[in-house]
Amino acid sequence: MTRNELFENIRKQQSFLCVGLDTDLRKIPECLRDDANAMFTFNRNIIDATAPYCVAYKPNLAFYESAGLQGWQALEFTVSYIREHYPDHFLIADAKRGDIGNTSKMYARTFFEEMCFDTVTVAPYMGADSVTPFLEYEGKFVTLLALTSNKGAFDFQFMEDKVTGMRLFEKVLETSQAWGATPDNMMYVVGATKAEMLADIRRIVPDNFLLVPGVGAQGGSLDEVCRYGMNDHCGLLVNSSRGIIYADSSEHYAESAAQAAEELQKQMAEHLRAFRLI
Amino acid sequence: MTRNELFENIRKQQSFLCVGLDTDLRKIPECLRDDANAMFTFNRNIIDATAPYCVAYKPNLAFYESAGLQGWQALEFTVSYIREHYPDHFLIADAKRGDIGNTSKMYARTFFEEMCFDTVTVAPYMGADSVTPFLEYEGKFVTLLALTSNKGAFDFQFMEDKVTGMRLFEKVLETSQAWGATPDNMMYVVGATKAEMLADIRRIVPDNFLLVPGVGAQGGSLDEVCRYGMNDHCGLLVNSSRGIIYADSSEHYAESAAQAAEELQKQMAEHLRAFRLI
Repeated sequence: MTRNELFENIRKQQSFLCVGLDTDLRKIPECLRDDANAMFTFNRNIIDATAPYCVAYKPNLAFYESAGLQGWQALEFTVSYIREHYPDHFLIADAKRGDIGNTSKMYARTFFEEMCFDTVTVAPYMGADSVTPFLEYEGKFVTLLALTSNKGAFDFQFMEDKVTGMRLFEKVLETSQAWGATPDNMMYVVGATKAEMLADIRRIVPDNFLLVPGVGAQGGSLDEVCRYGMNDHCGLLVNSSRGIIYADSSEHYAESAAQAAEELQKQMAEHLRAFRLI
Repeated sequence: MTRNELFENIRKQQSFLCVGLDTDLRKIPECLRDDANAMFTFNRNIIDATAPYCVAYKPNLAFYESAGLQGWQALEFTVSYIREHYPDHFLIADAKRGDIGNTSKMYARTFFEEMCFDTVTVAPYMGADSVTPFLEYEGKFVTLLALTSNKGAFDFQFMEDKVTGMRLFEKVLETSQAWGATPDNMMYVVGATKAEMLADIRRIVPDNFLLVPGVGAQGGSLDEVCRYGMNDHCGLLVNSSRGIIYADSSEHYAESAAQAAEELQKQMAEHLRAFRLI
């Protein structure tokens, strides 16, 4: 999917919501406990319920890996289901991979060729050759960690460079521009919990899409994210995971997820209107 | 496995060699092409051939994930095989994971509870809460990326802190000490291609084990690694992947792998003797 296609989907759906599929076998509603494919059944019902209100899905790989073979299969089923039934929805592998060149190539092949994701989250610590193999796929994106939503972000990401005065997350944004990254093949993770940094970030990467976790359970504000982060292609994919998929642990979990997603979609539509994007 | 047990195994084997199981379906010898479990068969033969000369195995997760369900199964078989037949060999999941706290917990559960690895490689970019969930397991280790062996290491890892003058990899070493990390639950990745940095690194973490990739295919020198990195518990696990497992692409691949491993083991025994550790 290209950046323009993504923007058109955002306009059509009046939403820039990404639903995070952090599907945890121990948090799945009681009513699914006897289902041999519980992870996939849960995902399918959540997807069918929320698809009208979002433009993207983001399975978090950790949750599938922790369930072993069964989890890996649930992930494959989920990806195929979205590809078949909702081909316009953007598909993010939240994997935070990153390794030496020949290994990153293997990861790129897994997520882009075997599983048909549109993007994969990548950690920048190992530098250029850990990231560039993901950039070689036409119509695919890298989503590089810049400023994450968690408390540990303060440990290293704000370290200031002795030479340039730049903070590490800014250096990641700037340096990655030299790797052949453009707004058409690179997005960045910027946590909603640090929304006040978005103005600084937009000075370095005015046009790239930002994947913004941390609205909801982690405490970030959608208003602030939009005020500082929105651009003329929207430029934002705001993720909510727990707040949607675990909105309700009863057998009505799918309806409750739809409700939670619709609530966010309505707020997003207002922001899109305020920015005259719809 | 405890640090002392690992050291005892190093003394017994007269080796601190780790064999990297970067098993790539497209590089597996012709003679295995018709084997339905080719990845596992290859691994099993490599393991049986090299076990007398090494103390650790390190499957690189990327290679298994890229083969989908079949790859994940080959990984599970490989781990079980090592656990059953070579219980004293240290088992490293080369996964380079790292995510917000609740997600890192899932990864820790996968690698330590589901799969019984002794350690998993973790990326430091997201800071404390992305790493500490892995530290909570008795008798297990985190192996944190500090200074990696690839060219991209120069992009961010050498950035100097404006306040302390420390380079990022040094800050990772120092900061992680405050997370409840000790030589008994934390190791660090330090690439052999930057062996001249080992003296600086040993000033900050004199006692921790270092996992050292980059000897062989990537050009690092074993002599230099030992000169600057060895301590009174050896403190080194030196990895070789391609140089051993792809030493030969004929049907004699296992014998050739054994030969390549034995050659390294003999050099290592000399270093251990020179340091009076055996």
